[in-house]
Amino acid sequence: MIKDAYKLSATEALSLFASGKLSSVELVKSCLTRITETDDAIRAWVYLDPEAVLAQAAECDRIRKAGLATGPLHGIPVALKDIIDTADMPTGRGTPIFKGRRTDHDARLVELLRGAGAVIMGKTVTTELAFVHPNETRNPHNPDHTPGGSSSGSAAAVAAYHVPLSIGTQTNGSVIRPASFCGTFGFKPTRGVISRSGLLQTSDSLDQVGCFGRTLADVALLTDVIGGYDGRDSTSFARPRPAMAQGAAQDAPVTPSLVWFDLPFNDRLSDDARDGIEAVLDILGPSVSRMEPADTLSNLVAVQARIHEYEICAQQAEVFETHWDQISDTLKPVVTRGRQISQVEYEDALAVKASAEAFFLDFFTEYDAIIAPSATGEAPRFDAGGTGDPIFCTIWTLAGLPCVSLPLLVGETGLPIGVQLIGPAEKDNRLLRTARWLQTQLAEAAQ
Amino acid sequence: MIKDAYKLSATEALSLFASGKLSSVELVKSCLTRITETDDAIRAWVYLDPEAVLAQAAECDRIRKAGLATGPLHGIPVALKDIIDTADMPTGRGTPIFKGRRTDHDARLVELLRGAGAVIMGKTVTTELAFVHPNETRNPHNPDHTPGGSSSGSAAAVAAYHVPLSIGTQTNGSVIRPASFCGTFGFKPTRGVISRSGLLQTSDSLDQVGCFGRTLADVALLTDVIGGYDGRDSTSFARPRPAMAQGAAQDAPVTPSLVWFDLPFNDRLSDDARDGIEAVLDILGPSVSRMEPADTLSNLVAVQARIHEYEICAQQAEVFETHWDQISDTLKPVVTRGRQISQVEYEDALAVKASAEAFFLDFFTEYDAIIAPSATGEAPRFDAGGTGDPIFCTIWTLAGLPCVSLPLLVGETGLPIGVQLIGPAEKDNRLLRTARWLQTQLAEAAQ
Repeated sequence: MIKDAYKLSATEALSLFASGKLSSVELVKSCLTRITETDDAIRAWVYLDPEAVLAQAAECDRIRKAGLATGPLHGIPVALKDIIDTADMPTGRGTPIFKGRRTDHDARLVELLRGAGAVIMGKTVTTELAFVHPNETRNPHNPDHTPGGSSSGSAAAVAAYHVPLSIGTQTNGSVIRPASFCGTFGFKPTRGVISRSGLLQTSDSLDQVGCFGRTLADVALLTDVIGGYDGRDSTSFARPRPAMAQGAAQDAPVTPSLVWFDLPFNDRLSDDARDGIEAVLDILGPSVSRMEPADTLSNLVAVQARIHEYEICAQQAEVFETHWDQISDTLKPVVTRGRQISQVEYEDALAVKASAEAFFLDFFTEYDAIIAPSATGEAPRFDAGGTGDPIFCTIWTLAGLPCVSLPLLVGETGLPIGVQLIGPAEKDNRLLRTARWLQTQLAEAAQ
Repeated sequence: MIKDAYKLSATEALSLFASGKLSSVELVKSCLTRITETDDAIRAWVYLDPEAVLAQAAECDRIRKAGLATGPLHGIPVALKDIIDTADMPTGRGTPIFKGRRTDHDARLVELLRGAGAVIMGKTVTTELAFVHPNETRNPHNPDHTPGGSSSGSAAAVAAYHVPLSIGTQTNGSVIRPASFCGTFGFKPTRGVISRSGLLQTSDSLDQVGCFGRTLADVALLTDVIGGYDGRDSTSFARPRPAMAQGAAQDAPVTPSLVWFDLPFNDRLSDDARDGIEAVLDILGPSVSRMEPADTLSNLVAVQARIHEYEICAQQAEVFETHWDQISDTLKPVVTRGRQISQVEYEDALAVKASAEAFFLDFFTEYDAIIAPSATGEAPRFDAGGTGDPIFCTIWTLAGLPCVSLPLLVGETGLPIGVQLIGPAEKDNRLLRTARWLQTQLAEAAQ
């Protein structure tokens, strides 16, 4: 019997499964106990059926014992943001409008999880319609603080050792920011790597799927499983996906070349975050080039907002029309603003987005990755409302670049702060390799 | 420059791609030349756009050179039976009714192929609605003979070195039989391994996808790529798939235990096929147990026919109603017969099918595989009409078991004859391992 199995990474648990020292039922029971003990304070879960979950785990164990095929996530519990459809659980999308909503199908990524032997643990809390208005989840490191959003419960559940892995989405900073606030790894691969079929659509141009885990290897493993071409998703590309786990396991053949951008909004960084990042940059020394980019780069923040707000109004028009009274006072002004964006303004924004993508295509011929903050600092207080400022994610999300947040720093009140790396599109494996290098550099410097 | 690249197996070509000795464009050009030189006599192809295919191959080469991710079939041309939908090519289903028919989506398995980097070469001739009435394709070994059906063109294209790999379907014997007649490997995995979303539905309970290749490793590789859970397919199972390539590369840890069934319809075997099989059984000696099963086993042949005929009438009812004048005189009597099957008879047949599946679940605890003929003998003459007798495939298809045909024998006129192995459901990897063992045994005996 493994003590405190809930603390294991997915990779560790898989190795114990293979050697017969742990069963999926034992792991899932341990996670369920952990949830029972801690979720009153954290409230990461909106739907969790322990009996159904244990039945899935028992089936995984039966398959393994019967000598049938096992998958790369065989018996591992994975949590899903509550905007990801499943045939066997409700998907409430963080709003009373869809409370208890059921569908008869799994999202494409859920099919891939089931085909890989994963245990679908349940649904984790999202903000209202995966946008600005927070729901009940608290930061596991301090319940007086937000876990970030919109993938609030997915980040909190992994940070609180409820599950080793979870899935979220990012339209602006909704994977990287909560990963930073909760002290987990967060990985949002290149736009189009993971299908969004069966997910709430808030912005077809910007919505992207990402993963949370407590190790780099874990988020890479999960991404390998759920990546794949899907003709029903407008951003999915009909090409092979980078081998994520392979990238995360590789040593950098030469010292990577990083860039730090001095951006006008860097003044939003808290002092502890700035000090922490400066210390990281000092350790990395000449591997990092500091650069003051043209204003066009920081102007992309407004471009993201225009596309995001215009598209959510278009794509959720029916919801806003028929359920306006159930929309939060936080979201209402955003929708009102979005409705005033003209078709021409929107199309101009899309054109700027396309030119930003072209810019980064060239940019990364000289650099391995951009190093940047994941968030402005520690998680803000819960009673401040909101889920924190996504500004340090906006540009990369707009350009569809792969981003990873590493839990490397600690703020002045003891809350975690992440460091972000951003890489070239469709070279996620190289980004993960660079992330591994960064982790090693800091670990060595700490010795 | 590799001479006669069209002769390479997929595995060989991939290795030459990796070492830079061959490009996908070179391989595809070689295949296209081979097609031009030989397809007037064989007529395997119903749709082939050389320019579009070369563009796909060039894109694969570009991706490889750019250091982007490559997939397990990167740059390898794969042919599709003309009942498999593609967004960029017509899918005519072997009947004038659907000639030039276009859809805006790829079948699920085509999405998986594109995501693996495969080049979708084109559409290969099928019989009318993938059933009894033959179309124009001839046997590459002798154009006076049928290639078998219904996956006629898929088998012929691989046998004629037009492509290293192709995909077909089997509702009765439509992969194994043409593989036998054309002298290729044919592999139909366990029912539900490969999704049928986006394929013509002739019998929801029986339709199964299979692969053709010139080596065991190749059909295993292709099956690994196109296998996966799909909630939209009623037979697809939400569990991991066996690792096919791994199975095909493994040595049997102990001598496998095979069974030969003396079945009443074994008298349909031609003399040369019988002699050939007996010689194989002699070589295998005590590894094979001969068994005279209860009549219930051979009675399953009628059960398959009842389900197949009932379901095609139900599932293609609209086609038969609105296009009866365009249905062949071969198919018409089958449909007429199918329409007379009552709901009760059909449900009884489904119950027998379920009990057959339960029987085989137990059966294979003692045996690794059943060894059986793939077909009655050499391919019949084309002018005899039809595509040969599927009887030696019927029972296994009904039970959804994995089947593989190995091109091991040669008939009296020099045409190939296959030997079939059938294994336990969802242990396809073990079946492929046993197939590899059989191949080795016969190669050693031939020395």
